[in-house]
Amino acid sequence: MKPEPVTVATKGVVAVRPWKLAALAEVIGATLEGDGNLDIRGAAPLDRAGAHDIAFLSDPKYRAHLETTQAAAVILSPREAAAWATPRARLLAANPYAAYAKAANCLYPEPLPPTGVHPTATVAATAQVAADAVIGPHATVGEQAIIGARSVIGAGCAVGDHVTIGNDVRLHPRVVIYSRCVVGDRCVLQSGCVIGADGFGFANEDGRWIKIPQIGRVVLHSDVEIGANTTIDRGALDDTVVEEGAKIDNLVQIGHNGVVGAHAIIAGCAGIAGSVNIGKYCRIGGAAMIGGHLSIADGAIVAAATPLFSSIESPGMYSGVYPVQPHRQWQKNAVQLRQLDTLYKRVRALEKALAGETPATEEHEED
Amino acid sequence: MKPEPVTVATKGVVAVRPWKLAALAEVIGATLEGDGNLDIRGAAPLDRAGAHDIAFLSDPKYRAHLETTQAAAVILSPREAAAWATPRARLLAANPYAAYAKAANCLYPEPLPPTGVHPTATVAATAQVAADAVIGPHATVGEQAIIGARSVIGAGCAVGDHVTIGNDVRLHPRVVIYSRCVVGDRCVLQSGCVIGADGFGFANEDGRWIKIPQIGRVVLHSDVEIGANTTIDRGALDDTVVEEGAKIDNLVQIGHNGVVGAHAIIAGCAGIAGSVNIGKYCRIGGAAMIGGHLSIADGAIVAAATPLFSSIESPGMYSGVYPVQPHRQWQKNAVQLRQLDTLYKRVRALEKALAGETPATEEHEED
Amino acid sequence: MKPEPVTVATKGVVAVRPWKLAALAEVIGATLEGDGNLDIRGAAPLDRAGAHDIAFLSDPKYRAHLETTQAAAVILSPREAAAWATPRARLLAANPYAAYAKAANCLYPEPLPPTGVHPTATVAATAQVAADAVIGPHATVGEQAIIGARSVIGAGCAVGDHVTIGNDVRLHPRVVIYSRCVVGDRCVLQSGCVIGADGFGFANEDGRWIKIPQIGRVVLHSDVEIGANTTIDRGALDDTVVEEGAKIDNLVQIGHNGVVGAHAIIAGCAGIAGSVNIGKYCRIGGAAMIGGHLSIADGAIVAAATPLFSSIESPGMYSGVYPVQPHRQWQKNAVQLRQLDTLYKRVRALEKALAGETPATEEHEED
Repeated sequence: MKPEPVTVATKGVVAVRPWKLAALAEVIGATLEGDGNLDIRGAAPLDRAGAHDIAFLSDPKYRAHLETTQAAAVILSPREAAAWATPRARLLAANPYAAYAKAANCLYPEPLPPTGVHPTATVAATAQVAADAVIGPHATVGEQAIIGARSVIGAGCAVGDHVTIGNDVRLHPRVVIYSRCVVGDRCVLQSGCVIGADGFGFANEDGRWIKIPQIGRVVLHSDVEIGANTTIDRGALDDTVVEEGAKIDNLVQIGHNGVVGAHAIIAGCAGIAGSVNIGKYCRIGGAAMIGGHLSIADGAIVAAATPLFSSIESPGMYSGVYPVQPHRQWQKNAVQLRQLDTLYKRVRALEKALAGETPATEEHEED
Repeated sequence: MKPEPVTVATKGVVAVRPWKLAALAEVIGATLEGDGNLDIRGAAPLDRAGAHDIAFLSDPKYRAHLETTQAAAVILSPREAAAWATPRARLLAANPYAAYAKAANCLYPEPLPPTGVHPTATVAATAQVAADAVIGPHATVGEQAIIGARSVIGAGCAVGDHVTIGNDVRLHPRVVIYSRCVVGDRCVLQSGCVIGADGFGFANEDGRWIKIPQIGRVVLHSDVEIGANTTIDRGALDDTVVEEGAKIDNLVQIGHNGVVGAHAIIAGCAGIAGSVNIGKYCRIGGAAMIGGHLSIADGAIVAAATPLFSSIESPGMYSGVYPVQPHRQWQKNAVQLRQLDTLYKRVRALEKALAGETPATEEHEED
Repeated sequence: MKPEPVTVATKGVVAVRPWKLAALAEVIGATLEGDGNLDIRGAAPLDRAGAHDIAFLSDPKYRAHLETTQAAAVILSPREAAAWATPRARLLAANPYAAYAKAANCLYPEPLPPTGVHPTATVAATAQVAADAVIGPHATVGEQAIIGARSVIGAGCAVGDHVTIGNDVRLHPRVVIYSRCVVGDRCVLQSGCVIGADGFGFANEDGRWIKIPQIGRVVLHSDVEIGANTTIDRGALDDTVVEEGAKIDNLVQIGHNGVVGAHAIIAGCAGIAGSVNIGKYCRIGGAAMIGGHLSIADGAIVAAATPLFSSIESPGMYSGVYPVQPHRQWQKNAVQLRQLDTLYKRVRALEKALAGETPATEEHEED
């Protein structure tokens, strides 16, 4: 079976809400140039947009597509618009990508399942579920849990006792929220994420590990997104906190007692050990690994695949990635890396020899 | 409680289909030497095989086991067979490991649960489920979804609206397939994997993140295997595609809009960012990390734990792994790595000094 | 919504079992100094403990908090106690952190749901479930499965056919145990973990992959903890084994046929390939990656984020982590790392030149 790539036909099942171009321009705060009466029925890349699609130009490397695009209208910066003579409608925005994001959200509103509690769901008698919330099939809602207005608990989710879920929250299928955790308004949790599992805390006694009860919570402030199969552990005594607007990708691990600052972004496969304080507006690259008890300054950027074992005091980008090479070249260089300290000493010895000194004593100082 | 290791007793509960050796040889395309009438009732390693087990020799380092094995028959290459005088039955095959794989599939067919929809499952009225498909307990099948012949939807799976699942597909328990995704014939999806969660796409406006609706799909072609808790994100506008025969291990992340080429293999914990094009027959090692928008040439090999941030234009093996050392040695070398560029300049200065030049000017050129 | 941090109010919903201080001292094996009649109703950090909380001092860097703490009693070493003149009650213990762990387990016993099989659970007729076990909502228990005394199978768990689960086991919601696996007494499995999915075994024939049936099991001995969304694959022919007391964090992958030694600890995001033998008492850091078929000596420590591709023969700590730097400095050093072998040769040439030799021939020996 080789399914066809996306076409109008396969995209036809996406729920689209059509807009008049003028209305769309107003809602996204863009300046309209052209026919505001056009019907917009979808979004598409510049090179494949059809007569009722809106497209956007954000990265100048796609500028050539402007000449051939069939889009009904294009969102772009005033500067790009000025350089493009065209009969097509345009929406001018200082930040075309953000304007496109708003337009796409207008065109493709998240479909809401019918409100109410599915007959197969298990909701504790003491839980408070808003009348216009959705509890999906086979979901479980624990004692004293609170589910806010218009929130959707997907199929098979497990919401523990005393959990509080705000308004307009979306839990995709099979999310687990352990007891007493808090999910703020408008959070989106993708499938399989686990919020509030026990932090990894054990005391060692004579070689054996004694579990430390993890009695803190996980608290997600509003507008947080959590990726599929990501895990965020509850605190040992304090809470683990994700502040408002932070976005966390798939398969990320956040250890107990940590804080993810407001509007920070953490890409997939990153691992954050316990008690890490990630500042506001930080950007943590995919598969970056951050050791325990560190602080990352507001706005700092940790490059993808970088292991970090000391705190970052000031913004800027920090990297620590082994450069890739064809295997045989890598092998030769790696051999030398294993004895780099020795090479350094040999260079110093050469410098001293050239200067007429003897290096022997200094070698001992080093060790 | 210390359970016994695998024994005939514990293996006794595995569903085994016995074969006559001659029939098995024919089915797997091997040349029989010896008694074709032998009953084969299981597979086992050479050194622990019993009188009704088949074993195989693929790696020459286990050759010594041939002398002592109690196996009913051994699959091996004609060359190894020629060097081994024995009264035991043998199956000669150019590729003994592949021949063993076929034999093991004959002996241990995947058990199929009883067909039909479990009474606790929730299947939408508009879904089309093949009469001989299996919908397990507490599974959910969405509106307009299609489930093909002999396919098994395990316990607690959530199959979204408009999903298409081909024939002979196996979804182990608790798999999630988001709406509109496509799963080709004979795919195997291990538990906990999440297919089609939203790609990680946000536009930044004044420090805040605006979600970009992810309206593409995930399309898995036929004969794909997806590991436990692996996540494959749906495309933003286009699809994310895994081509036929590709095999993906556990806890792998595949970002939106990517393509995994036919018969590629991706080992556990690998992270593939968005819009990556992995060629056919590629091999991506465990915990390798591939940055966004890259292309990997057909047949290229990325070593385990290698971070890759530039495209690979031609096949071959590529590595970028820090060499491990005892901690104290590592510390010394890492200190020097942090100032390697300076060491390089000192070497150049030495070269110039030996050649009678002054290095001072050039230092400035570098910065 | 910005929820308040943990307060007495939010912690009030935690199930606490109050203790007299003298009784607590006796149970945890500490020496009481002060009023044994005090009521202890919780645990808290030194600097935030209230009049009925117990606190502890393990790391000397928090010693200053002793002067201002409001804790009812403090657990600390005899040596720290001797240096602290105070009217407060103290519990003296050689290992204060372990003593605290025991005390916290007394104060915060894991709440047990009501025993019995939830009406929405699906339990096979041939399964044996202890009368005092708990089978949660929407859980599935397969044919011939055994669930031991006082064990809890959380909401939405899928326990396969012929699985054996010991006594006092805790499966949090949405755990999957594939058929025939074994879970020892007192194991704790966090949500989303997958035990016994197929190992990643394929034979290559002409570029295509043939699946090798994975007929071994996963066997977890007693007192093992498995983190959220961790995956442990079943063996190909042998078992994958986690020995008693080993603790494994979130999002860890353990490949088929491996052994994790008794009391070993593996931190989050670590990846262990197939057939790896991790010794007893080993410590594997977060995001460490261990290649296939290796052995790690008892008690060895692999640093976080370290990729390991050769066996470790003796205890000690092993590291292989790229040192992080501001991006621009990293770039310069990485460029030189890519040609480190050349730099080495240039140094050798310099040494020979200073000694009056010509290096040219030797360069050729290298390649």
